[in-house]
Amino acid sequence: MSTTSTWTVTGMTCGHCVASVTEELTELPGVEAVDVTLETGAVVVTSSEPLERGQVEAAVAEAGYALA
Amino acid sequence: MSTTSTWTVTGMTCGHCVASVTEELTELPGVEAVDVTLETGAVVVTSSEPLERGQVEAAVAEAGYALA
Repeated sequence: MSTTSTWTVTGMTCGHCVASVTEELTELPGVEAVDVTLETGAVVVTSSEPLERGQVEAAVAEAGYALA
Repeated sequence: MSTTSTWTVTGMTCGHCVASVTEELTELPGVEAVDVTLETGAVVVTSSEPLERGQVEAAVAEAGYALA
């Protein structure tokens, strides 16, 4: 079973930013898919187990951005 | 002797864009230094020989941007 969670990431301005965020989130344990919409900052993460906000926040910060 | 030329690149929105443009321009023959100012799009290139606009334009396009 997979879980889907939606987050909002601020500060992304271009495709490079999207790539950085996607890369960091993909490295979280259990993550199966990451879908980022640049225009809105919406990030949908599909994972085998529920993710905690702290994990997501840390990965997004690693990429250089922040959760709304 | 080195030559310095200044160009304006449009469409850069973040540090990743700056890095991409810098990387492509650095690969041009004779280029010794590249200095990009994100806010203005100004790109100063120092090279051992004068660069032609076509060379710079092609490198910038390779990075995904355009000369003004």
